[in-house]
Amino acid sequence: MKKIYVGLIGFGTIGTGVVKLLQNSSQIIEKRLGARLILKKIADVDLTTPRDVSVEKGLLIKDANEILNDPEISIVIELMGGYEPARSFILEAIRKKKHVVTANKALLATYGNEIFKTAEEEGVDIGFEASVGGTIPIIKTLKEGLVANRIKSVSGIMNGTSNYILTKMTDEGEIFDAVLKEAQDLGFAEADPSFDIEGIDTAHKLAITLSLSYGKRVKLDDIFIKGISEISQKDIEFAKDLGYKIKPLAIAIQREDFIEARIHPTMIPFDHLLANVNGNFNAFHITCDAADSVFLYGQGSGMMPTASAVVSDLVDISRNMLKGIARRVPSRSRREDIIEDIKLMPMDDIVTNYYFRFSVIDRPGVLSKISGILGENNISIASVIQKGRKHDNAGAVPIVMTTHESKEKNVQKALKEIDRLEIVRGKTILVRIEDEKLK
Amino acid sequence: MKKIYVGLIGFGTIGTGVVKLLQNSSQIIEKRLGARLILKKIADVDLTTPRDVSVEKGLLIKDANEILNDPEISIVIELMGGYEPARSFILEAIRKKKHVVTANKALLATYGNEIFKTAEEEGVDIGFEASVGGTIPIIKTLKEGLVANRIKSVSGIMNGTSNYILTKMTDEGEIFDAVLKEAQDLGFAEADPSFDIEGIDTAHKLAITLSLSYGKRVKLDDIFIKGISEISQKDIEFAKDLGYKIKPLAIAIQREDFIEARIHPTMIPFDHLLANVNGNFNAFHITCDAADSVFLYGQGSGMMPTASAVVSDLVDISRNMLKGIARRVPSRSRREDIIEDIKLMPMDDIVTNYYFRFSVIDRPGVLSKISGILGENNISIASVIQKGRKHDNAGAVPIVMTTHESKEKNVQKALKEIDRLEIVRGKTILVRIEDEKLK
Repeated sequence: MKKIYVGLIGFGTIGTGVVKLLQNSSQIIEKRLGARLILKKIADVDLTTPRDVSVEKGLLIKDANEILNDPEISIVIELMGGYEPARSFILEAIRKKKHVVTANKALLATYGNEIFKTAEEEGVDIGFEASVGGTIPIIKTLKEGLVANRIKSVSGIMNGTSNYILTKMTDEGEIFDAVLKEAQDLGFAEADPSFDIEGIDTAHKLAITLSLSYGKRVKLDDIFIKGISEISQKDIEFAKDLGYKIKPLAIAIQREDFIEARIHPTMIPFDHLLANVNGNFNAFHITCDAADSVFLYGQGSGMMPTASAVVSDLVDISRNMLKGIARRVPSRSRREDIIEDIKLMPMDDIVTNYYFRFSVIDRPGVLSKISGILGENNISIASVIQKGRKHDNAGAVPIVMTTHESKEKNVQKALKEIDRLEIVRGKTILVRIEDEKLK
Repeated sequence: MKKIYVGLIGFGTIGTGVVKLLQNSSQIIEKRLGARLILKKIADVDLTTPRDVSVEKGLLIKDANEILNDPEISIVIELMGGYEPARSFILEAIRKKKHVVTANKALLATYGNEIFKTAEEEGVDIGFEASVGGTIPIIKTLKEGLVANRIKSVSGIMNGTSNYILTKMTDEGEIFDAVLKEAQDLGFAEADPSFDIEGIDTAHKLAITLSLSYGKRVKLDDIFIKGISEISQKDIEFAKDLGYKIKPLAIAIQREDFIEARIHPTMIPFDHLLANVNGNFNAFHITCDAADSVFLYGQGSGMMPTASAVVSDLVDISRNMLKGIARRVPSRSRREDIIEDIKLMPMDDIVTNYYFRFSVIDRPGVLSKISGILGENNISIASVIQKGRKHDNAGAVPIVMTTHESKEKNVQKALKEIDRLEIVRGKTILVRIEDEKLK
């Protein structure tokens, strides 16, 4: 049986999962691939922390260059994360004509152009299924399954920690800080959770998704990002009354010449499939011109699910090698030289529905004042909820409004005016609503 | 730009969709593939019925042999359906070293062994993504995305018509016959709907799914099949009271040495993703050892969604051709000669939960009589609903029971005894329940 030698850089959680999976599933893989994958070297700066898998002593090395310089190794798996030295290692592997498999979304979102272009020049493959949506075959589906489609929209829950927090807040009435602490204790939220809850991690994944959906490049800084930390129990309950769940969505929509791309907590109808994606699961909802509506769901993170995606890339590349070819499918579904930049729609021009929760003094004329300002700014009100008269600590009561389709620019202007009113206590909470567009 | 010539046999609904898609998406496909797909000939016995696409006159031919004998054509798309002459055309195409793309689930479920073996011998590719789940990338996901996984279960809604009928009955309280007529009027249920509503169409798709999940062959006749025509409004309402929806499921579960495979209307909890697959949509829920839980959803039929899957196969095969290779991935994910037969578990040995609706005379001792027989047969009752005393035309009232896990053989024996009781009017309705196993 033919042998294909693989080197692994980064022996953390996912790296451990890959080693485990290659051990546990070697028979299945051999039967399907018709060849043997041999993990020849594992490089990590930390060789002392015990891992949840047993490995022959000789495999472990400190210096990744030993992998890059080993002519027998033809595929390098990069699972160390971060920008450097991951970027340099990957570029060096490519220049040495080694294929690369990586789960490094931050790196691809930021240095994707350089990495993909170099890989094309050197004629090697880059597998990155694990970088977006973990075990969900979103990359393959966009590049291959939907190859004959124009993508109209991709929306998704791309961060498990944010989804876990909002799910717990919704289902068990817990408060944000308590759930975050719980997720940290369970080990899947980081000690510094800002990457997850502030939407940065999602932005990396959306950037990669965008470049596959529209075959173009996108500047990470141009994507509108709002995290979930402002969402409170109050908003979750008002959302319920209105027939919505609040989910941490990333949204990309094709508009004539522009692509709308934004990340924020979003109210979606109860019966939308995305509303039923709970816990730390991820999901993607794609709408397109021929295939209509496709929805993919699975574990977006975690040791074994992510390892499953990494090994699927390994096998994919190995199948090419066994046939003596490479780059059967371009990294970003077309040749790098015909990929254009994406023109993102400025956030000011976005049109959608909104939920506002105003904190106001309970006094005659308040509603008229607020609705007046909204009207002047061309924002038409769809519903109003003003329940009871229970004051909060600041002596304010909530008024909740939802709007018909309105322009973000007008909304921001109106809220600025409203928040300056003497009758308003505290900043108005805004949550965007998606009703029909994602269906 | 390189040209790849394609011949189409079967110019019905899906065939028309494929022609449309190749016309509408030629630019996208060329950019992604780097070559031009040229539809050179379209064969159909009926050349007079107008189609919803305009085609150059010279393309249309009556005799499919012109396609099979055209040396310039390297890929044949078979969309005529049925067993013959589809089978002969496909085998002839393969022997002429042409690659084949087909959506013909009945043919593959029945003659798959012959077709896949011949394709392997002749070294050509068979694309059949469109045969199961329409636009849903279930074939690619099982063969490639989950290549390193042991599949624990695959359950799914694989027939749009059945799902449409049960959805309408559930959401709008309509009766079976009325919804069926409606689906026929809308054109997506056949004049003879038995293939759809009796589960035959689903069985074809499950047979193909099984052979990919377990890399083995299955005898179609050994799969337990029960259609949806016995489901009434009463059962849908009792299901609601119990927290379930009734869905037309196909279920495959790996048990030690056996595979459990069965098709029947099934009660599943409201919050299961499959319970939220409505209308004529299809979905697959896969559980496996590394990737955990993967859920795929989309249009399982229809002109353009199915065409999208057909064209994705065309592009897949073309990418091989452009690299001068074929059979990069074996048709059924491993070499044909190492594929074993599947050992299906006899239906008698299945263990699951059950819902029974008994029609009984409202008289003291009835409940004790029925529960006595269940107890004697080792069937333990989980819940009982006996509401009001409204008699039906036969003077009977319903008693509903759900069971803990019980053996199918015991259940069938008990129901036979119960249905013979003098106090029982009419056949007891049985619906299987899946609670935890598919999660």
